[in-house]
Amino acid sequence: MILVRQEIGDVLRDFRLQKGRTLRQVASKASVALGYLSEVERGQKEASSEILASVADALDVPISIIMREVGDRISVLEGLQVFPDVVPDDLVASIEPQLSLR
Amino acid sequence: MILVRQEIGDVLRDFRLQKGRTLRQVASKASVALGYLSEVERGQKEASSEILASVADALDVPISIIMREVGDRISVLEGLQVFPDVVPDDLVASIEPQLSLR
Repeated sequence: MILVRQEIGDVLRDFRLQKGRTLRQVASKASVALGYLSEVERGQKEASSEILASVADALDVPISIIMREVGDRISVLEGLQVFPDVVPDDLVASIEPQLSLR
Repeated sequence: MILVRQEIGDVLRDFRLQKGRTLRQVASKASVALGYLSEVERGQKEASSEILASVADALDVPISIIMREVGDRISVLEGLQVFPDVVPDDLVASIEPQLSLR
Protein backbone atom coordinates (compact mmCIF):
# COMPACT_ATOMS: atom_id res chain seq x y z
CA MET A 1 0.00 0.00 0.00
CA ILE A 2 1.37 3.40 -0.97
CA LEU A 3 1.43 5.72 2.06
CA VAL A 4 1.28 9.44 1.36
CA ARG A 5 3.01 10.28 4.68
CA GLN A 6 6.07 8.30 3.57
CA GLU A 7 6.41 10.40 0.41
CA ILE A 8 5.65 13.65 2.23
CA GLY A 9 8.39 12.79 4.73
CA ASP A 10 10.89 12.03 1.98
CA VAL A 11 10.08 15.22 0.10
CA LEU A 12 10.34 17.40 3.22
CA ARG A 13 13.71 15.86 4.11
CA ASP A 14 14.99 16.24 0.54
CA PHE A 15 14.03 19.93 0.41
CA ARG A 16 15.59 20.51 3.84
CA LEU A 17 18.88 18.87 2.81
CA GLN A 18 18.82 20.68 -0.55
CA LYS A 19 18.66 23.95 1.40
CA GLY A 20 21.41 22.85 3.78
CA ARG A 21 19.31 23.19 6.91
CA THR A 22 19.35 21.01 10.01
CA LEU A 23 16.32 19.33 11.56
CA ARG A 24 16.85 21.61 14.56
CA GLN A 25 16.78 24.81 12.45
CA VAL A 26 13.61 23.86 10.60
CA ALA A 27 11.83 22.53 13.70
CA SER A 28 12.66 25.72 15.57
CA LYS A 29 11.55 28.02 12.76
CA ALA A 30 8.34 26.00 12.26
CA SER A 31 7.68 25.83 16.01
CA VAL A 32 7.36 22.05 16.03
CA ALA A 33 9.19 19.60 18.27
CA LEU A 34 12.41 18.28 16.76
CA GLY A 35 11.45 14.65 17.50
CA TYR A 36 8.07 15.13 15.85
CA LEU A 37 9.56 16.63 12.68
CA SER A 38 12.05 13.76 12.58
CA GLU A 39 9.20 11.23 12.78
CA VAL A 40 7.30 13.08 10.05
CA GLU A 41 10.40 13.00 7.80
CA ARG A 42 10.74 9.25 8.39
CA GLY A 43 7.08 8.69 7.48
CA GLN A 44 6.24 7.52 10.98
CA LYS A 45 3.80 10.30 11.85
CA GLU A 46 1.10 12.00 9.82
CA ALA A 47 1.72 15.74 9.68
CA SER A 48 -1.44 17.76 10.25
CA SER A 49 -2.23 20.36 7.60
CA GLU A 50 -1.20 23.11 10.04
CA ILE A 51 2.20 21.48 10.72
CA LEU A 52 2.71 20.93 6.99
CA ALA A 53 2.02 24.61 6.32
CA SER A 54 4.45 25.67 9.08
CA VAL A 55 7.23 23.37 7.88
CA ALA A 56 6.77 24.39 4.23
CA ASP A 57 6.96 28.01 5.35
CA ALA A 58 10.09 27.32 7.43
CA LEU A 59 11.68 25.67 4.37
CA ASP A 60 10.62 28.56 2.08
CA VAL A 61 8.99 26.05 -0.26
CA PRO A 62 5.37 26.58 -1.39
CA ILE A 63 3.04 23.76 -0.26
CA SER A 64 1.97 23.31 -3.87
CA ILE A 65 5.55 22.43 -4.86
CA ILE A 66 5.71 19.89 -2.05
CA MET A 67 2.38 18.29 -2.95
CA ARG A 68 3.15 18.13 -6.68
CA GLU A 69 6.50 16.53 -5.93
CA VAL A 70 4.68 14.03 -3.69
CA GLY A 71 2.24 13.34 -6.53
CA ASP A 72 5.07 12.89 -9.04
CA ARG A 73 6.93 10.43 -6.79
CA ILE A 74 3.77 8.41 -6.10
CA SER A 75 3.02 8.26 -9.82
CA VAL A 76 6.41 6.58 -10.30
CA LEU A 77 5.57 4.10 -7.50
CA GLU A 78 2.20 3.46 -9.15
CA GLY A 79 3.92 2.83 -12.46
CA LEU A 80 2.18 5.75 -14.14
CA GLN A 81 4.06 7.84 -16.67
CA VAL A 82 5.29 11.22 -15.50
CA PHE A 83 5.52 13.94 -18.08
CA PRO A 84 8.69 15.85 -17.09
CA ASP A 85 8.32 19.57 -16.31
CA VAL A 86 11.77 20.30 -17.77
CA VAL A 87 14.08 18.61 -20.22
CA PRO A 88 16.43 16.39 -18.15
CA ASP A 89 20.04 17.63 -17.98
CA ASP A 90 21.48 14.41 -19.44
CA LEU A 91 19.13 14.65 -22.42
CA VAL A 92 20.19 18.26 -23.00
CA ALA A 93 23.86 17.21 -22.80
CA SER A 94 23.30 14.43 -25.33
CA ILE A 95 21.55 16.75 -27.79
CA GLU A 96 23.76 19.86 -27.47
CA PRO A 97 26.76 18.48 -29.42
CA GLN A 98 24.47 17.71 -32.37
CA LEU A 99 22.93 21.18 -32.22
CA SER A 100 26.34 22.87 -32.36
CA LEU A 101 27.19 20.92 -35.53
CA ARG A 102 24.42 22.59 -37.49
CA MET B 1 -3.17 29.53 5.93
CA ILE B 2 -3.61 27.00 3.15
CA LEU B 3 -4.78 23.68 4.59
CA VAL B 4 -3.95 20.58 2.59
CA ARG B 5 -6.88 18.63 4.12
CA GLN B 6 -9.31 21.19 2.67
CA GLU B 7 -7.99 20.62 -0.84
CA ILE B 8 -7.80 16.83 -0.38
CA GLY B 9 -11.44 16.87 0.75
CA ASP B 10 -12.53 18.95 -2.25
CA VAL B 11 -10.63 16.73 -4.68
CA LEU B 12 -12.04 13.51 -3.20
CA ARG B 13 -15.58 14.87 -3.38
CA ASP B 14 -15.11 16.12 -6.95
CA PHE B 15 -13.82 12.73 -8.11
CA ARG B 16 -16.68 10.96 -6.32
CA LEU B 17 -19.31 13.19 -7.93
CA GLN B 18 -17.58 12.92 -11.30
CA LYS B 19 -17.98 9.14 -11.02
CA GLY B 20 -21.59 9.45 -9.91
CA ARG B 21 -21.08 7.66 -6.61
CA THR B 22 -22.72 8.38 -3.28
CA LEU B 23 -20.88 8.96 0.00
CA ARG B 24 -22.48 5.72 1.22
CA GLN B 25 -21.15 3.67 -1.72
CA VAL B 26 -17.59 4.96 -1.41
CA ALA B 27 -17.52 4.72 2.40
CA SER B 28 -18.77 1.16 2.22
CA LYS B 29 -16.28 0.09 -0.47
CA ALA B 30 -13.40 1.80 1.39
CA SER B 31 -14.53 0.36 4.75
CA VAL B 32 -14.64 3.76 6.43
CA ALA B 33 -17.51 5.27 8.41
CA LEU B 34 -19.82 7.42 6.31
CA GLY B 35 -19.67 10.29 8.80
CA TYR B 36 -15.89 10.18 8.80
CA LEU B 37 -15.65 10.28 5.00
CA SER B 38 -18.11 13.16 4.97
CA GLU B 39 -15.92 15.10 7.43
CA VAL B 40 -12.81 14.35 5.34
CA GLU B 41 -14.58 15.64 2.22
CA ARG B 42 -15.53 18.84 4.06
CA GLY B 43 -11.93 19.34 5.18
CA GLN B 44 -12.86 18.91 8.84
CA LYS B 45 -10.80 15.77 9.49
CA GLU B 46 -7.30 14.79 8.38
CA ALA B 47 -7.42 11.50 6.46
CA SER B 48 -4.66 9.11 7.51
CA SER B 49 -2.52 7.76 4.68
CA GLU B 50 -4.23 4.38 5.04
CA ILE B 51 -7.73 5.92 4.74
CA LEU B 52 -6.58 7.99 1.77
CA ALA B 53 -5.29 4.86 0.03
CA SER B 54 -8.58 3.02 0.71
CA VAL B 55 -10.74 5.87 -0.53
CA ALA B 56 -8.61 6.38 -3.66
CA ASP B 57 -8.92 2.65 -4.33
CA ALA B 58 -12.69 2.76 -3.78
CA LEU B 59 -12.91 5.66 -6.27
CA ASP B 60 -10.66 3.86 -8.79
CA VAL B 61 -8.41 6.94 -8.91
CA PRO B 62 -4.63 6.55 -8.40
CA ILE B 63 -3.35 8.40 -5.32
CA SER B 64 -0.83 10.19 -7.54
CA ILE B 65 -3.66 11.74 -9.57
CA ILE B 66 -5.32 12.92 -6.36
CA MET B 67 -2.11 14.41 -4.95
CA ARG B 68 -1.14 16.16 -8.18
CA GLU B 69 -4.63 17.63 -8.44
CA VAL B 70 -4.26 18.81 -4.83
CA GLY B 71 -0.88 20.35 -5.72
CA ASP B 72 -2.34 22.06 -8.79
CA ARG B 73 -5.22 23.57 -6.83
CA ILE B 74 -2.93 24.79 -4.05
CA SER B 75 -0.63 26.38 -6.62
CA VAL B 76 -3.59 28.45 -7.82
CA LEU B 77 -4.34 29.46 -4.22
CA GLU B 78 -0.67 30.38 -3.78
CA GLY B 79 -0.82 32.49 -6.92
CA LEU B 80 1.81 30.37 -8.67
CA GLN B 81 1.54 29.71 -12.36
CA VAL B 82 0.25 26.31 -13.37
CA PHE B 83 1.54 24.93 -16.62
CA PRO B 84 -1.52 23.28 -18.14
CA ASP B 85 -1.35 19.56 -18.90
CA VAL B 86 -3.50 20.02 -21.98
CA VAL B 87 -4.25 22.87 -24.33
CA PRO B 88 -7.45 24.54 -23.04
CA ASP B 89 -10.53 23.98 -25.25
CA ASP B 90 -11.13 27.69 -25.80
CA LEU B 91 -7.55 28.17 -26.97
CA VAL B 92 -7.92 25.26 -29.40
CA ALA B 93 -11.17 26.78 -30.68
CA SER B 94 -9.49 30.16 -31.21
CA ILE B 95 -6.57 28.65 -33.13
CA GLU B 96 -8.38 26.07 -35.25
CA PRO B 97 -9.93 28.57 -37.74
CA GLN B 98 -6.45 29.98 -38.48
CA LEU B 99 -5.00 26.50 -38.94
CA SER B 100 -7.68 25.57 -41.48
CA LEU B 101 -6.81 28.69 -43.54
CA ARG B 102 -3.30 27.42 -44.25
